[in-house]
Amino acid sequence: MMANAIRVLAMDGVEKAKSGHPGMPMGMADVATVLFSKFLKFDASAPNWADRDRFILSAGHGSMLIYSLLHLTGYKQATREQLENFRQWGSRTAGHPEYGHLEGVEVTTGPLGQGLAHSVGFAMAERHLASRFGDELVDHRTWVIAGDGCLMEGISQEAIALAGRLKLNKLCVLWDDNAITIDGSVALSDATDQLARFKASGWAVKAIDGHDHGQIKKALAWATKQSVPTLIACKTKIGKGAATMEGSHKTHGAALGDMEIAASRQAMGWTAAPFEIPAELDKEWKKVGKAGSKHRKAWEARHLAHAQRDEFTRAMSGDLPNGAFAALDAKLKELVETKPAMATRQSSGEALATVFDAIPELVGGSADLTGSNNTFVKNTQIMDAPTYHGRYVNYGIREFGMAAAMNGMALHGGVIPYGGTFMVFSDYSRPAIRLAALMGTRVVHVLTHDSIGLGEDGPTHQPVEHLAALRAIPNLMVFRPADTVEALECWQVALQHKTTPSAMCLSRQKTPAVRTTDAGENLSRKGAYELKAANGTAKVSLFATGTEVAIALDAAAKLEAEGIATRVVSVPSFELFAQQPKAYQDAVIARGTVRVAVEAGLEQGWMRFIGEDGAFVGMTGFGASAPAEVLYEKFGITAGAVVEAAKARL
Amino acid sequence: MMANAIRVLAMDGVEKAKSGHPGMPMGMADVATVLFSKFLKFDASAPNWADRDRFILSAGHGSMLIYSLLHLTGYKQATREQLENFRQWGSRTAGHPEYGHLEGVEVTTGPLGQGLAHSVGFAMAERHLASRFGDELVDHRTWVIAGDGCLMEGISQEAIALAGRLKLNKLCVLWDDNAITIDGSVALSDATDQLARFKASGWAVKAIDGHDHGQIKKALAWATKQSVPTLIACKTKIGKGAATMEGSHKTHGAALGDMEIAASRQAMGWTAAPFEIPAELDKEWKKVGKAGSKHRKAWEARHLAHAQRDEFTRAMSGDLPNGAFAALDAKLKELVETKPAMATRQSSGEALATVFDAIPELVGGSADLTGSNNTFVKNTQIMDAPTYHGRYVNYGIREFGMAAAMNGMALHGGVIPYGGTFMVFSDYSRPAIRLAALMGTRVVHVLTHDSIGLGEDGPTHQPVEHLAALRAIPNLMVFRPADTVEALECWQVALQHKTTPSAMCLSRQKTPAVRTTDAGENLSRKGAYELKAANGTAKVSLFATGTEVAIALDAAAKLEAEGIATRVVSVPSFELFAQQPKAYQDAVIARGTVRVAVEAGLEQGWMRFIGEDGAFVGMTGFGASAPAEVLYEKFGITAGAVVEAAKARL
Repeated sequence: MMANAIRVLAMDGVEKAKSGHPGMPMGMADVATVLFSKFLKFDASAPNWADRDRFILSAGHGSMLIYSLLHLTGYKQATREQLENFRQWGSRTAGHPEYGHLEGVEVTTGPLGQGLAHSVGFAMAERHLASRFGDELVDHRTWVIAGDGCLMEGISQEAIALAGRLKLNKLCVLWDDNAITIDGSVALSDATDQLARFKASGWAVKAIDGHDHGQIKKALAWATKQSVPTLIACKTKIGKGAATMEGSHKTHGAALGDMEIAASRQAMGWTAAPFEIPAELDKEWKKVGKAGSKHRKAWEARHLAHAQRDEFTRAMSGDLPNGAFAALDAKLKELVETKPAMATRQSSGEALATVFDAIPELVGGSADLTGSNNTFVKNTQIMDAPTYHGRYVNYGIREFGMAAAMNGMALHGGVIPYGGTFMVFSDYSRPAIRLAALMGTRVVHVLTHDSIGLGEDGPTHQPVEHLAALRAIPNLMVFRPADTVEALECWQVALQHKTTPSAMCLSRQKTPAVRTTDAGENLSRKGAYELKAANGTAKVSLFATGTEVAIALDAAAKLEAEGIATRVVSVPSFELFAQQPKAYQDAVIARGTVRVAVEAGLEQGWMRFIGEDGAFVGMTGFGASAPAEVLYEKFGITAGAVVEAAKARL
Repeated sequence: MMANAIRVLAMDGVEKAKSGHPGMPMGMADVATVLFSKFLKFDASAPNWADRDRFILSAGHGSMLIYSLLHLTGYKQATREQLENFRQWGSRTAGHPEYGHLEGVEVTTGPLGQGLAHSVGFAMAERHLASRFGDELVDHRTWVIAGDGCLMEGISQEAIALAGRLKLNKLCVLWDDNAITIDGSVALSDATDQLARFKASGWAVKAIDGHDHGQIKKALAWATKQSVPTLIACKTKIGKGAATMEGSHKTHGAALGDMEIAASRQAMGWTAAPFEIPAELDKEWKKVGKAGSKHRKAWEARHLAHAQRDEFTRAMSGDLPNGAFAALDAKLKELVETKPAMATRQSSGEALATVFDAIPELVGGSADLTGSNNTFVKNTQIMDAPTYHGRYVNYGIREFGMAAAMNGMALHGGVIPYGGTFMVFSDYSRPAIRLAALMGTRVVHVLTHDSIGLGEDGPTHQPVEHLAALRAIPNLMVFRPADTVEALECWQVALQHKTTPSAMCLSRQKTPAVRTTDAGENLSRKGAYELKAANGTAKVSLFATGTEVAIALDAAAKLEAEGIATRVVSVPSFELFAQQPKAYQDAVIARGTVRVAVEAGLEQGWMRFIGEDGAFVGMTGFGASAPAEVLYEKFGITAGAVVEAAKARL
């Protein structure tokens, strides 16, 4: 029986690793078998075929389920050796499915709820691209297996409400309704009627016996006919097939042990060696892996004949169109002349306006702060049912759901998502930003209101630790542009990095133009650069980001007026600076000078610029509720304070 | 009309500040008026009366609603002057309600959804304390006003599912169902049937006209009779009473302007000067503020006569019982003898076991990782309906909801909550940890699996940036104990700080005892201390935390064997170290020595110990899936690497 092949591989893999989660793969083996063999549109020989159905294992701890499926259906990278090296150094079969490690894994999962939330983005991208290129090129489904944990996480509500609102009918969630969590029965901590809950958000729902292939088949067929997203509650036994432990939470997160495995194999009539699949069964599964190839070939023919063939290929590749930055470059030249003073969130809006038409993959949105985030480009249509043609998403007050959906769209391909919220609420979306960094998705988080400069809303809305906290995430580019020129440059860099997410940190309050001469190159790309040279041999170096660059320039002018040669370094991105050659870094840092940094955040991380002896002018704790200018004064983030700090060290 | 007093004050306050949110207070003025005048048990002259009902404005942007109510009912601190200084420096009337600024504000709100999630903790604490001290001392309700934003945030699902499961029938949520968000109509981003959704999680629900006092009164009376938590959907018009802007999202987040306010006042027949309440109306409202005093006095009499009077007072004060740490102190003496090697998560479990009986306020729990977090003390009962007597909560897979509920319990008083999850998922609960730090709640986050040392689960589960990110939060004590002695010490410090939350970062993997002599004092309290002195004048200083302290000791032994005098500093808490006298800090840091830090996390923040020239042995990016010992080797976090780094700098 095909499903037993999954069960045995799951037992074997976890047993060999002495680590892992056999219960879920065993429980969902039947559902997965029917899905893969009768419904999922895929071709194991072409894992990256653009019009494949997407399969997302939101309950990522059950990774042996997807590894088994990929192996059984003949994905080239999912070798027996990989299964035998489950959870070992250098293997493609990591403890949780990792995007980029193994073809067929569409998204990194494990942090619960997020696979489900990412799947909404996949489904959005699919419909949006179908509207752009036509159903003949884009017409596939997104199938998700989710567990109780996924549904308990709050993110699930954001995901299902957004999907329900958008009527994403090609999204189907298969809930592993096994009534078991790590601590025991689901009833210990939950009494939610999940069917009613999904229904309340506009989903079509159905409950089935997750071990009855007939019921599964019927339900999946039903799902393909709905006009709204679908939830199928699959009543299963965790660890189904385990001789004595079936149905117990003990099968969830540990190897079953030799004895139990032997007994289970015997009960299944399974005599093959560990990791070995009997020839007949192997043939049957491989056939499943090949079944989609006729669809793929037909699609390739359609693609070849399609008027937008090359444009589709380009869009899916993630390459930017030719001339993507022509308007941006022109605008840069204009800005050094016009020197506009504005909030950097407005500057970001200007940047978007220069690229939005030129890069049709850009899809924006906001977590209900459109006007504040300056994320909306004039005349853009809203992405909504039934056409999904618009390029702006009303994400609702769902920062985390937005960030996850953005990742999903980026992973699907053909879309470059950006989304706005207040910077302080990057805490809400943080787990998805982390996944973006881990997977390397090109998403741009537009984080406005980036300091006490937002004023009266007070400390709950004022980031102080967030620059440090975001900079702490590996492979995330954190930008804090100082003016419109830098904002355009930072956007350009963000969009040019195909495998790096960005956080664009932007002010609510107005700030003067500081880049007032044409450098002829994108200086922000270096992460930090000398914005103003000292008059003579520099005695003082001032480092600043964002709105505080103007303060540093002001302080420099005051110091120079007293005959103290002072240079100013703008630091739009720590991460990009860290990638520069050491000689460049040393020149910018200028260790021989008195070094002072000014940023309306915490000091953490700044010593790489100012050393132990340098001074930091910034925040030391939470902000307060008052007008912005009062707060800067009260918290001592002023040119005067910078001057004093420098002079105290001369 | 009483409700109009709220409306006018809201308009006046926002107008004077030229900043704020009048729409919500105006829309919910009727509901709030009925609640405060007919149902809410409170005495404005005794804001901290233990048995008062708790009122939580989850939609915190509508702060003028609560400020108006507190002013109108006669709370001493809520003066007219405070209303006039709404959102100004030093005022009690911050942009969003801030706990500790103004009596009557039970919790800081503004980050949406969190007031609702905190309210669950209030309701839990109430029932739990009722079981401990009897209904004659503890018998009050928790009333919440929540907006559309609160209900869209994922955290709301965690909160309502937990409350529903626990049948917290004294919790009532009044939903401001105004169908408006910042970007426009709720329908732009949501189509959820909220009544059905709450019902699905076991709530009793009802929809009313939120401007019909008769309906409001009937619904609130109904709510007090239910056996499960209640949701009342109050259909309202945002900005109700605004002459031309009523019902428009334009009333949400900005001053209405002189003209609109004048017209609105005229339509209401309101002629008093700004911030002035007509005498009759003032009298009526003040009467409301005094109505509860008879209940309060009756309660005081009951309290006076109560057998557990002093114990109740102590528990509510937050003071620990005498002898709270007797068993812990004894255990410490034992540990330096027995020198047990164990995972620090086990050490934390040992610490809990020594204080759990002695501190009856401790209420533990886990987000479904009880066995992994070592949060469960043997023989503890589960907190559940109908008695709520147990001291362990099955929070379910809801890290954020757990963290918020913990804050709510701590704010209610009489409970010291701790809760466990994997450290990487502190990202999920981060927004509530931040609020804990901002408000100063004594909650302890038990964060196990604190590094790549968790092994095979891989990078989705391995914190690398989390130590830096948690250390970035002001007023949060981040502990990373090196062994069982330090774990006990850190727990003691955490529990002794009444207004500081703690994060206890703990290993999955075993580590040897490193504190093997009785210091006679709690050394962890200093944040960092010399664990091992150099043999002779120190040439090298090694700094480490947690499981890496053993690596540092190993490296020191190797260096000493080569004749290089090396000291080792254990750093259980950056925050506590930063509070030490400068002379102590300098002595510990020992700038003249070669300095090397080792921690299985990122470098960010470590320069304060090692300076620009020091070496950091740790992570530079995400982890990987493999057994722990392999990962330490592959990522080069070894004694050998520490030795090399030191020698390279000698």
